[in-house]
Amino acid sequence: MRSSALAPLSGHAFVKGHGTENDFLLLPDHGGELDLGAAAVEALADRQRGLGADGVIRVVRSAVSGIEGAQEQAEAGAEWFMDYRNADGSIAEMCGNGVRVFAHHLVTEGLVPDEGEILVATRDGVKAVTRLSDPFTASGEPWYEVDIGHWELPEQDALVEITGVQVPRPGLRISTGNPHVVVALANPRELIDADLHRAPSVSPAPAGGINVELIVIEGRPSRQPAPGSAGELSMRVHERGVGETRSCGTGACAAAIAARHWAGNGAPDIWRVNVPGGSLRITISPQSVRLAGPAALVAAGGIQLA
Amino acid sequence: MRSSALAPLSGHAFVKGHGTENDFLLLPDHGGELDLGAAAVEALADRQRGLGADGVIRVVRSAVSGIEGAQEQAEAGAEWFMDYRNADGSIAEMCGNGVRVFAHHLVTEGLVPDEGEILVATRDGVKAVTRLSDPFTASGEPWYEVDIGHWELPEQDALVEITGVQVPRPGLRISTGNPHVVVALANPRELIDADLHRAPSVSPAPAGGINVELIVIEGRPSRQPAPGSAGELSMRVHERGVGETRSCGTGACAAAIAARHWAGNGAPDIWRVNVPGGSLRITISPQSVRLAGPAALVAAGGIQLA
Repeated sequence: MRSSALAPLSGHAFVKGHGTENDFLLLPDHGGELDLGAAAVEALADRQRGLGADGVIRVVRSAVSGIEGAQEQAEAGAEWFMDYRNADGSIAEMCGNGVRVFAHHLVTEGLVPDEGEILVATRDGVKAVTRLSDPFTASGEPWYEVDIGHWELPEQDALVEITGVQVPRPGLRISTGNPHVVVALANPRELIDADLHRAPSVSPAPAGGINVELIVIEGRPSRQPAPGSAGELSMRVHERGVGETRSCGTGACAAAIAARHWAGNGAPDIWRVNVPGGSLRITISPQSVRLAGPAALVAAGGIQLA
Repeated sequence: MRSSALAPLSGHAFVKGHGTENDFLLLPDHGGELDLGAAAVEALADRQRGLGADGVIRVVRSAVSGIEGAQEQAEAGAEWFMDYRNADGSIAEMCGNGVRVFAHHLVTEGLVPDEGEILVATRDGVKAVTRLSDPFTASGEPWYEVDIGHWELPEQDALVEITGVQVPRPGLRISTGNPHVVVALANPRELIDADLHRAPSVSPAPAGGINVELIVIEGRPSRQPAPGSAGELSMRVHERGVGETRSCGTGACAAAIAARHWAGNGAPDIWRVNVPGGSLRITISPQSVRLAGPAALVAAGGIQLA
């Protein structure tokens, strides 16, 4: 086509990418000049009216982002701030799949060194992201790992009612910064049959909602696994305020933590979590949990801002 | 951002647009060099993995498109061929919302004269598209009108069962090239309550499936309307093989034809059809039906082809 083509549509620069099919619209705004209101985010994230994405991420230098605490993060070496918005325009502190795509964008654009840790500023503090050279799967996409940080098991049971699954099931509450409840289903058939068009009903009902992970643990984790051996599980997730998604990074972390908890002493610390959008690798330590997975950038160009 | 930015993602040129939120990915391929397989279309149209769209349209010169009959259409003055693919990679002959977006793209890029009829080559023959100067609504988007062509009422009743709507309802079959059955609901509440996550069940079951339009006619069309006065109806649609969509051009035509049929002698020939994604204007004559509505282009750039 002619080189002048598309000029009328140049608009604001964007990059579209995804991590295990959790997808994002990145808006480069290096100088912090973009005033991105909730309505504009909603229009961009709308899959028919806009370009569509699970989240919209402004790529801005921490020092000029105008976001509280970002200046300190810049001084700590996190030059770039991941200003994350949910598709509905609301702000989210962190996104485990999004931060990998964000880091991959920085690497691809030459905005950070190609090697070593990438420090990403977020509303949940500085996240260290590492590009991996040992991809867990052969997806052809580069893999990145991020330390999600502290996790805990609140000592509180839950009962979860799921459309399409008979009788309410016990759930294990897990906090990874955001709240999760993990339910082990009996077999793969139940995982397929679960109807997540409706939010599962969790009792007692948590204020502010909760993410629900349905899992089936593959095989039977050995009580005495070989050192470094990994567990494996399949997961579907219902994200609060969103519905079923093809992947949820912190949800995968919660699922692995629950599976390890249920398996008892000697259970693996490393888990492969298969989600509808691909596979993630979770590494659990007593004090933190690390999430590794692919990052893909699929399109770039200009988009009209509302 | 730097002018070199995004270069690694340049990929194939694309334009994203929509007509009443029925959305399309246009791929300029003026020289007919792009070999677009079903798998590539599916990946492009995937809303998480790709850019996402209801349909993918290759923009190719008719004369070099390699499509059967396109040479004759080129000679008839239709320089550009709308090579339309559904999101699943299958071929569709025509798309009433897509052809407006296609025409608007041609105008925007200066590929056709700014005035007069735009002849668009399609697998359903040459379609004449006109840019309107009398927008029916003030959506701020340019409006285009296309002659959808011949319509007919096959003399066959149908009974339609809809989840969320009590008792099966009679439906009127209408063909606009593709098959429709239109059901008049009793009131706006029923239209809201209809659950289109599941395909309505149509008896007798038509081979190849059928599109189902649920409508509520606004007000009470006068038996003796003032000349040129318009009727109005609200519509939701379940498209075969797709599910509920925010708009369906030929479905809106079918809905208006059914409403006019039910209203009897003296019913208006012009109907405003309100769909979830906006409003369309349908003009019915004994031999053909014209569809008018907005076209919007929202983004452009480069995308990776699978």
